[in-house]
This record gives sequence, structure tokens and C-alpha cells, in this order.
Amino acid sequence: MQLTGNLLIGQQSVAGSNGTIHAVNASTGAAIEPAFGGATLADLDSACALAWAAFDSYRETSPEVRAKFLETIAQNILDIGDDLVERCMVESGLPRGRLEGERGRTVGQLRMFADVVRNGDYIGARIDPAQPERKPLPRVDLRLRHIGVGPVAVFGASNFPLAFSVAGGDTASALAAGCPVIVKAHSAHPGTSELVGRAVQKAVKDCGLPEGTFSLLFDSGRDIGQGLVKDHRIKAAGFTGSRGGGTALMKLAAGRPEPIPVYAEMSSINPVLLFPGALGNRTEGIAKAFVQSLVLGAGQFCTNPGLVLAVDSPDLDRFIEAASSALKETAAQTMLTPGIHKAYEAAVEKAGSHADVKTAARGAEARDDHQAQSALFATTAEAFRNNQQLQEEIFGASALVVRCPDLASMLELIESMEGQLTAALHIDDSDHAEARRFLPALERRAGRILVNGFGTGIEVGHAMVHGGPFPSTADGRSTSVGSLAIERFLRPVSYQDLPDALLPDALKAGNPLGLNRRINGKVQLAE
Amino acid sequence: MQLTGNLLIGQQSVAGSNGTIHAVNASTGAAIEPAFGGATLADLDSACALAWAAFDSYRETSPEVRAKFLETIAQNILDIGDDLVERCMVESGLPRGRLEGERGRTVGQLRMFADVVRNGDYIGARIDPAQPERKPLPRVDLRLRHIGVGPVAVFGASNFPLAFSVAGGDTASALAAGCPVIVKAHSAHPGTSELVGRAVQKAVKDCGLPEGTFSLLFDSGRDIGQGLVKDHRIKAAGFTGSRGGGTALMKLAAGRPEPIPVYAEMSSINPVLLFPGALGNRTEGIAKAFVQSLVLGAGQFCTNPGLVLAVDSPDLDRFIEAASSALKETAAQTMLTPGIHKAYEAAVEKAGSHADVKTAARGAEARDDHQAQSALFATTAEAFRNNQQLQEEIFGASALVVRCPDLASMLELIESMEGQLTAALHIDDSDHAEARRFLPALERRAGRILVNGFGTGIEVGHAMVHGGPFPSTADGRSTSVGSLAIERFLRPVSYQDLPDALLPDALKAGNPLGLNRRINGKVQLAE
Repeated sequence: MQLTGNLLIGQQSVAGSNGTIHAVNASTGAAIEPAFGGATLADLDSACALAWAAFDSYRETSPEVRAKFLETIAQNILDIGDDLVERCMVESGLPRGRLEGERGRTVGQLRMFADVVRNGDYIGARIDPAQPERKPLPRVDLRLRHIGVGPVAVFGASNFPLAFSVAGGDTASALAAGCPVIVKAHSAHPGTSELVGRAVQKAVKDCGLPEGTFSLLFDSGRDIGQGLVKDHRIKAAGFTGSRGGGTALMKLAAGRPEPIPVYAEMSSINPVLLFPGALGNRTEGIAKAFVQSLVLGAGQFCTNPGLVLAVDSPDLDRFIEAASSALKETAAQTMLTPGIHKAYEAAVEKAGSHADVKTAARGAEARDDHQAQSALFATTAEAFRNNQQLQEEIFGASALVVRCPDLASMLELIESMEGQLTAALHIDDSDHAEARRFLPALERRAGRILVNGFGTGIEVGHAMVHGGPFPSTADGRSTSVGSLAIERFLRPVSYQDLPDALLPDALKAGNPLGLNRRINGKVQLAE
Repeated sequence: MQLTGNLLIGQQSVAGSNGTIHAVNASTGAAIEPAFGGATLADLDSACALAWAAFDSYRETSPEVRAKFLETIAQNILDIGDDLVERCMVESGLPRGRLEGERGRTVGQLRMFADVVRNGDYIGARIDPAQPERKPLPRVDLRLRHIGVGPVAVFGASNFPLAFSVAGGDTASALAAGCPVIVKAHSAHPGTSELVGRAVQKAVKDCGLPEGTFSLLFDSGRDIGQGLVKDHRIKAAGFTGSRGGGTALMKLAAGRPEPIPVYAEMSSINPVLLFPGALGNRTEGIAKAFVQSLVLGAGQFCTNPGLVLAVDSPDLDRFIEAASSALKETAAQTMLTPGIHKAYEAAVEKAGSHADVKTAARGAEARDDHQAQSALFATTAEAFRNNQQLQEEIFGASALVVRCPDLASMLELIESMEGQLTAALHIDDSDHAEARRFLPALERRAGRILVNGFGTGIEVGHAMVHGGPFPSTADGRSTSVGSLAIERFLRPVSYQDLPDALLPDALKAGNPLGLNRRINGKVQLAE
């Protein structure tokens, strides 16, 4: 499939004239053709105008039409075939297996949201019927549903060129919620973005939807991304990336005449807590599994286990030894972009030269300038507490083991930490009582708590929370992965005493959509 | 019941030493005893420390304990007896009937949230059971529940000294969600606040809850209110008041190292749309009902109908005439505070002297310096569009009728307006087709759409939305009234592969709380 380098504005393919972006071969650093034209502010305005014009009719499409649209996007992505995987391998440096898996996840997410739309529970339909005889005052008829917040800006993520980019989680949940989407492509994978963007654009046409339902813009600088978040027609934004980038968007959004929510997923070091029983009984098994999780995808996951906490002990020495042996065997891996690779090298260099930090092990050496060598460091609880630097995320396959004097000080460390996406506890039965004491602190600090596993490998389901208190995300009240993600793009509207003919289908007396609805506060399942 | 003028910090009654506040008799402007001592920053710190310490155990109280607590607060408020109503009448200038009704609403809200807590659906329990046999990878066990966000700051509202102040809607929903509450009392009704505060404080003790579950602070300036929103232990804030006050808190909250949500309900002019059929057929009936709604509670409701839109016509002339006749008969009413009265007088004076505005009618003259005279103005669509001043809320019994050239320009006016709490349509059967064309614009702009009624008189139910796009509220994704309000103080947490013994009761295999739970995405009602 031939790449054009064009913006996709509604059903148009438009040559961007505001500078150019070139993809870079992640393994060689060489620029790849074609050039992608950056969007102008006029292009941005066109996309926003189309999205705004599409909103009312798109949000009122029937569940079946909307579900079919999501399924058509999924099928159109599959129909690109191997061209997509190959282009994405070159742009991201990620291996085929990983990208085929990620494509499966992307398609799976879209199909899950099709089911969510058909199910209709996300509408949250509520009916408090009139009580004309109530004393002292009659009760009005009140009905409530949720509608989309409006057009949504989605920022592609460097580390998930498929599952969290053009047709990734944010796009799928926003489209499911009835919100048109404008994607700002990540400059690390413009070709992948165009291919997927065209699959979505075609699905809009295949399904006869208003063209403003979807647009894709390339940004040769920062004006388009910032302009999107500032545009009055954009009512929410989804972002996955750095803390600096995310907080900058949050500031822009809060400073608008009409502030909007930015759902930014930013940084997390994902503490792994090794409790004494498990550490003693399963030292080597845990160490090996930990290293596997650490180096997966060159460590470029937001749920990468960057921090290990345990009580200082001979068992912990054995753990560090076993993890070090395993880590030394790990191959260097190509990172997503030269910039990410450079930042990783600098951060690892800085950690390794810190006076209070010991380098436990490094992985196999890089075979070229774009590969990263994994790293395992160790320090003390005191040093960790006193050095903000040691608490910051190193994006890549690097972790820090903290030797704690006892479990009480380990809990104190947890209480001093910032918000996290995940926290993992490794426990045996004998550790239950101690683990229970940690749970309240972990619940306050993380979106997902897991036992005897690691946070990488995120199950896209109904009970998943991929979110957490700031700064792991902009705020912890929602998730970016799983079916609950649809809620971030919804708002409630109440209808009082509307004649049935004017009510939306979700709230009509005859329940034509066959929804589960809450009547006088109690859920009634559809027949 | 004797007032002490003291702060309530946990179970302590503490004399505030940071300046003093006196209540003012709304009808005379005279200061009333006793003096209320303003909280110091040390008092604020104590209250926050107690709230933080209480959070983990309070949020894990059983549904029955939490529900009983809310019911006990309700009963303790009733047990104050007439002292509460009398003090509140003096402080607010509101009449007995209104305050007895408001007390009923306050108590009703608390009891409704007790039912919500017992019902347990707000927990949003979800279970995706493990699938160890799944290929290519086994599926983990994932379970999700919602927990409280943390301690919440609640700002008392001047216009609802009971239903939206110390034990009002925000406090009830936050406590129901499992969040300790610190109230910053409104300086317009410190005595009412102390009485209700002591009822809550006693309920905490009656129910054996941690003392930090509730505190009440008086603020002699702005330091305590601002300090509350900035304190790192406060995780959300609820506010009802002016646009200036609300946006100032939003800025403070967004500027924290860890930003938090502020649920501010601010300003709304609540457009009333008179469609031709209804206007022609029921001119006088609508006019009378409109004036009744307009002057209710001296117009001091956030849902007060401040704007009437209709097509210029002889019917509209008749409407204005009928409304004017009715308005002239309305008595002047005491406003909540001298400050609010002064602001009302200034705004009405400014509107009446605007070159493009005609004064249609004024109500009966004030009998003293604290009463406000109702007002009805008229203008053209063009003037309304071109004068930002005319689009701003006048807090009090004042409304503006806008003569539109036709329905198309009426819709254009709606599209140019800011977010609103409510929009009311007056329609007959012949107006349905036109009304339907307006609905999408109204849904985008308002939290509640009502037919043949007015926004005042808010039903506290399950299908109520009292919220709306900015600036009617800080953001339109939640409601401050009704059972859905509990969601603003919740966040989701996911549990992966936890042994049953470590899971919270809401998620245990045996479903000991008897909850409706979503299993693999489908709701299963409790047996």
C-alpha cells in the first residue's frame, strides 16, 4: 500500500504545507520516505469544524450502526495486511511478534467497544417516573442518559504505535461514546499512522457516517497539538506520553475559557513488593519472571516494573544475584526512537554513577547505536527516600532494587511515593497478614494491584483499570484500557416531563433499544 | 441550643483564634452574637491530618454502618428542632416555610444516600474471572471496585444554608462515597452551620466512627478556604457559589503539585424557550407560572429562569403584558445577605439603564433597605447577541425577555450561549417538530432539559442532573444533586489475581455484600 504523506481531513486527503516530518528507521536512524506534510492552523480548523458538524448526528447513530463502524475499522486494519506490520517494524524497531500481538489487541479493543455499544449499559439510562398524586407536591417525570462530551483530540503514543495511537484505546472508546475524533499522529510512526488512518477514514465512508467523525493530522512542531487542545470545539483529550508533555497539555486545557479534561497517562515506576515468605521460598522463580517482565518490549511499557522493594536479607541478596544472572543474558534491544534511546542511556548513566547506587548487573552490550542495554541497580531505603532522582521513571529496561530495613519502613516508602499505575505484591500464604496491612496504602496510590505477577501484559477487559493517581495519570478517576474507558468521554443529561415522542430512544417508555435501565433507583434488566 | 462560636475539629470544639465572623440579621443588617472564631492554618492542618487518618478505616466501614451514619445525621438534624429553623431564618432572611422544606430536602438527601450505600451499585463491582486454559495466553483474574477519592473539602453555599451547606448534597454524597469531609462554613450563616455541624459531629460519635470523618471550619478571610483546596491530603472539593469564586478555586486546584477536581457550581441564566403554539394557546398561564418561578426564594436559585426567548409577535407582547401584570403584584423580598442585595440592585440598575433594554415591569417596592424588588426586562436578539453584559447572570428575581426575529435566529442565540444548568421548552403538540430541532443544541449546552415547567424546584432523585457545561459548573461530567452525585467522589481500582482472603468484600467469590456485579461485562443481579 502506497503512502501519500497526506493529512486526512474528513474524507479528504490533503497535502500538509506546514513543514515536513520524516519517519526514521529505528534500527539505523536513517530517514525514510515519503515526507509527511505538517498540518497548518487552517487544516486544524477544517478538521475541528468537520468534527463539530458531525457530532450531533454521529452521537445519535443507532447502537448497531456505531458497533458496525467499530467492527469495520477493525476489519479494515486487518485488511491492510502485512504492509502495516512491516512499516511499523521499521518505524518502531519493535519485533514482528510483538506488533502482530499489538494489532490483535487493537482489533480486539475495537470489537470489545462494539459489544459495549450494543450492550448499552454505558448509557446509564435512569427513569424516575412521574407521581402525579404525590403530596405535598406531585413528582415530575425524570429520565437520564449519558451522551458524548463532544469532539475528542487523541494524541498517538510512541510506545504503542497501534494499540494506543490512531485507532487505539482512546480513539475506540471516544468513538464508542459517540464522540468524533481528531488524532494528532505521533511523529515516530507517521507511516503506520497514515495506514491506520486510512482504514478508519474508509470505515467512515463504508458506514455512511458524517465525514467529520474522524480526521488525522501530522504536526511538524507543537502548534497543532497545542491548537487542538485549545480549540473551543474540542471537549476532551487523550494523551499517553511523558510527564512533561502531559502536564503541559493539562495546563493548556485548564487555561482555556472553557476548561476541558485531559486524560494524560504519564509516568509510573510500578513498585514490586517482595514479601519475606515469597522471597524466601521462590527467590529464583520470581527473579526470572521479574527480568522477563523488565526487558519485555525493551522496557518501553508504562507498567514496566522499575522498582523492587524488599526487606534487606540474605534472601534479597539471592534475589539480586538471580536477577542479575538472568539480566546479563538479556539481549540489547532497539528502542522506539533515537531520542528515547538517548534519554534512556543518559538516565542509566546518571543512576549508575550515583554515590548511593550500586550497579547490580547490565544486560548484553548493544550491537549498534540504537540498542539499549538493560540495567539493574540497588540502593538503600534511606537513599531512595532522600533522592527524588531515584524515584523518577527511567523509560526502558532499567530497575532499581531498594533494600528496606524492615516491612514498616517499606510501608513508609510506599506512603511517600507518588501515584502509580500498578503495584505488584509477591506473597505466599504466610505473607497474607502483612500484605493486608499494605493494601490500603496501595489502593490510595495505584490503579491496579496485582499478586504474584507483573504489570506488563495488560488484559483488555471489563474489570481492568489502567490509570492511577497523579502523576501516573492526570487524575485517577478513569481508565484508558478496558470497557470502563468509555465513561471518560460521557456526560449525563436529564430530561424532565418530555413527551415520549421527543425523548431519545434510550429513554422512551417502550424501551426500543432493549436497555437495562435503572427505575426508581433499581436496575431492571431488559426482557 | 446554645451556640459556642467554635470550630469543630474531629470530636473537639476549638475556639478559633484567627479573627472573628459575626452572623448578620438579613432583615436588619445587624450583627448577631456570638462571634465565630476563624480557623488558623494550624487548625486547618489538624482537621486535614484527622481526615487523612480517618480515610482508610472510614472507607472500609460496612454498607450498613455507613448508611446508619447518614441516617443518624439526618435524625440529629431533626432533633435540633425549631432552633435550627429560627436561627436560619434570621441569618438567611428566608421564610419559615422555605426553610422547613429545605430541612426536609436535606434530611431526605441523607436518607437517599443511605439507600444508595445499602444498594451498593455505586461500587460498580466488575469481575472478569480467570481463564487458565485460554490460548495463546491464560487470562488472569481481574476484579474492579470503586473507592472514595480521599478527604473532600466542601464549601457551604449562601443560598442553601441547609441543603447545600454543612450537611448538604456535597457532604452527603462524599460521606456516602467513603470520603471524610471538611466543611468550610459560609460566613452568611455560621450559627446554622454550627448547629448542623454539631449534629454531624455527634453522629460520628454515635456511630463509633473515626473522629476525622468530619470537621467544620470558619474562615475569617480566604486563607482557610484556599488552604483547604491546596492541602495535599484533600483530594476533591465541592463548591456552590459565584463564577469568580469557583474559577479561583479551579485555578488553585489545577496548580497544585497533584491537581485535584473541583466540582464548582457557578452561574446559569437557564433559558426558557416559548414556542409559537404554546405561546399562542397558553400565554397567560405560562406568564403566571414563569413569574412564580422567577420570584421564588427572591430568585436566589441557580436554576432561576433569567432568560426568556421567543419569536417577536403579538403573542409575545401579550406574554410580556401578562408577566408584567403578575410581576407588579410580587412583594419585595429580603435577600440572603446585604452584599448579595447590593449586587442585585447594581445589576438591575445597570440592565434597566442599558440603551437596548426596556424595563417591562418592576415588582412592589422594597419596604426596607434589605429587600429586593423583582424586575422584568426586554430586549432584541441582536442586542442580546452583541452585549456580553446581557448574557450574564443577575442573581435574584430578574429576567430578560429576548424578542427573536424567528425560530432560526432563536436557535442561533442558543448556539452562541455558554453552558447552562437547565433549559426549559414550552410547547404544544404543534411545536414538536420545531422543538425536536432544538434538542441537540440544548443537550450540548445544558444538564437538564424540561418541558412545560421551570428549573426551580429540583427533584432529588436518581435521574436528576444538576450540573452542566462550563461555566454553569466546573465541568459537565457530573451532578451535584441526586444519587448520581456519589460518582464524583469515586475512583476505580482493579485487583489482579488476589487470593479471596485479601479481596475486599465487594469482590469476594461469595459476594458477601449481596451486590449486583458485572461478570464478563454483563450485569448479574444479586440473588
